[in-house]
Amino acid sequence: MMSKVQLLDFLKEIKEQIDAHIFNFLPSEHEHPEVHQFYQMMLDYPLRAGKGLRPAICLLICEAFGGNPRKAINTAAALELLQNWALIHDDIEDGSDLRRGEPCLHRKYGIPIAINVGDGLHCKMWEMLNRNADLLGYELAFEIASEFAQLSNSIVEGQHIELSWVENNRWDLTESDYSTMCIKKTASYTCITPCRLGALIAQAPQNELDLFVDIGKNLGVAFQIQDDVLNLVGEERLYGKEIGGDISEGKRTLILIHLLNACSEGEANRVIEIMGQRREDKHPDEIQEVLALMKHYESIQYAQQHAKALAQKAYARFNEAFSHLPASQAKDIFLDLIHFVIEREY
Amino acid sequence: MMSKVQLLDFLKEIKEQIDAHIFNFLPSEHEHPEVHQFYQMMLDYPLRAGKGLRPAICLLICEAFGGNPRKAINTAAALELLQNWALIHDDIEDGSDLRRGEPCLHRKYGIPIAINVGDGLHCKMWEMLNRNADLLGYELAFEIASEFAQLSNSIVEGQHIELSWVENNRWDLTESDYSTMCIKKTASYTCITPCRLGALIAQAPQNELDLFVDIGKNLGVAFQIQDDVLNLVGEERLYGKEIGGDISEGKRTLILIHLLNACSEGEANRVIEIMGQRREDKHPDEIQEVLALMKHYESIQYAQQHAKALAQKAYARFNEAFSHLPASQAKDIFLDLIHFVIEREY
Repeated sequence: MMSKVQLLDFLKEIKEQIDAHIFNFLPSEHEHPEVHQFYQMMLDYPLRAGKGLRPAICLLICEAFGGNPRKAINTAAALELLQNWALIHDDIEDGSDLRRGEPCLHRKYGIPIAINVGDGLHCKMWEMLNRNADLLGYELAFEIASEFAQLSNSIVEGQHIELSWVENNRWDLTESDYSTMCIKKTASYTCITPCRLGALIAQAPQNELDLFVDIGKNLGVAFQIQDDVLNLVGEERLYGKEIGGDISEGKRTLILIHLLNACSEGEANRVIEIMGQRREDKHPDEIQEVLALMKHYESIQYAQQHAKALAQKAYARFNEAFSHLPASQAKDIFLDLIHFVIEREY
Repeated sequence: MMSKVQLLDFLKEIKEQIDAHIFNFLPSEHEHPEVHQFYQMMLDYPLRAGKGLRPAICLLICEAFGGNPRKAINTAAALELLQNWALIHDDIEDGSDLRRGEPCLHRKYGIPIAINVGDGLHCKMWEMLNRNADLLGYELAFEIASEFAQLSNSIVEGQHIELSWVENNRWDLTESDYSTMCIKKTASYTCITPCRLGALIAQAPQNELDLFVDIGKNLGVAFQIQDDVLNLVGEERLYGKEIGGDISEGKRTLILIHLLNACSEGEANRVIEIMGQRREDKHPDEIQEVLALMKHYESIQYAQQHAKALAQKAYARFNEAFSHLPASQAKDIFLDLIHFVIEREY
């Protein structure tokens, strides 16, 4: 097994390759001053240090299935572009302040310009996918574009579920509600589709691609739960978002759902009262009050255990489903990544 | 030449065909109540009565070039989907109130949900284009997707130019500034690309496609100027947006640019003062004051004449460039459409 440092170095190396490909692709100069400025804004989120987890998963699975990871470069880059346009819009929709340690794009340039920059990167994602025609031939390029269409549908549906909870002031949610939303919004683009795409580019048969649905659901939900945990107990310097930001934003996490079910009715009413306030009306003491209850009822610990169990399930299912794959460094690193997902600090 | 009533009936017929194709394609039901609601919201703008001008142009040019318009159905529908996602985001970015006679999507459901619904339709546009692989074969489908990628880049760049003017409180604009923005933002998706796509599906050679750049620029800018004129002097019932809404929104139109150059310095300062106020701070009397100056300095008349000259240029260039095309109903109707663009009341 790789050490955490080795794994982080490996992720960094892949991220650098994909970034080079993206920055070679995205336009950076234009004689028209406003268009030039627009290009700089499209580069803003991609230039911020992300983990590069999704492209890494895509490339590793491609290699583990005997494919050439160089053939997956456009696809892995398109996954990064997807994340960037979705994050820009997500940050506006959630009223977030910080992203990867810097003010969100709409805090820098206002909502109208930020929506449009997100749209610009969205278009660039499809343009990047069009390049697969030369690299992989038409048929495979189209299959990949179809995977992205399915993925995109899933993300916007998951996002709508979450936004509706906020809009309708819904707090009566079950773990199953959370899981449905999280699979659509996060697991699909963090794990399911990156794995499927890697296997697809390596020409794996359809039934093997479909095995990644279950593996990716478990791993992706584990990833999101860990993200929600870090949002409460992480270090801002490493995590890159404001700690407790999910409480400020009134986000429905597994941790919150556990708390509302575990605490007394009076406490639940108080938590809902605080969570339901507008962000700007929340006092730091109130955020601490909710956090203290989450600690008291061991909701954070519960969520961490749940994430661990899901990641273990993903690990076991992967080994079971793909025992026929020859031993390889790529396969080993992918398995290490599963551990990383729940042990990471950022 | 067709009468205006005949032309409107013809447009209506094409619109019905394309709508049927779109409503057959967009999902309308889901067992998850929030996802079901999301599907209804994605149908909202497409269900409002648009003109269907862009799909009509695409189908007519396809037929005029000897192609089978049935082969252009996915592409024409994708043009409508493009317009719908772009309008949802545009309405948020401009702070608009009405669209096609009803409150804008973000006025009905709030900005976060509306951004996401626009993203949902954006994804559906590319999914529709993926269907061209079966209908037209991989190669042509990819060429069409590439046209859409170019078009999308152009639209977001044009939109950024316009949003920057608002953000930076810029009023020192020339007709050439307006024209650059308008070609990128409007002419590309209203005329240039619909024409190019129609000809492409009819297998016209690349050099003929390129002739549509100039024709489409002239016609598209004429279209937008007429839109800006109707915004000031149209009937709300027909036009579907609030009359004078462009003044409320502080929109930089050719009419405004003409006025600022024609009026006295004192008047220009007063106009800029009114235009630069936030929408909610503008008094109806102030909007009337600007409108009166536009009438006094014949800025509306100037813009109308300019639009007419551009449309005439497009008409002449089309006849000159494509004199080799055999006479056909499709060709005649396209030429009628050029007149319609500047004579329409909605």
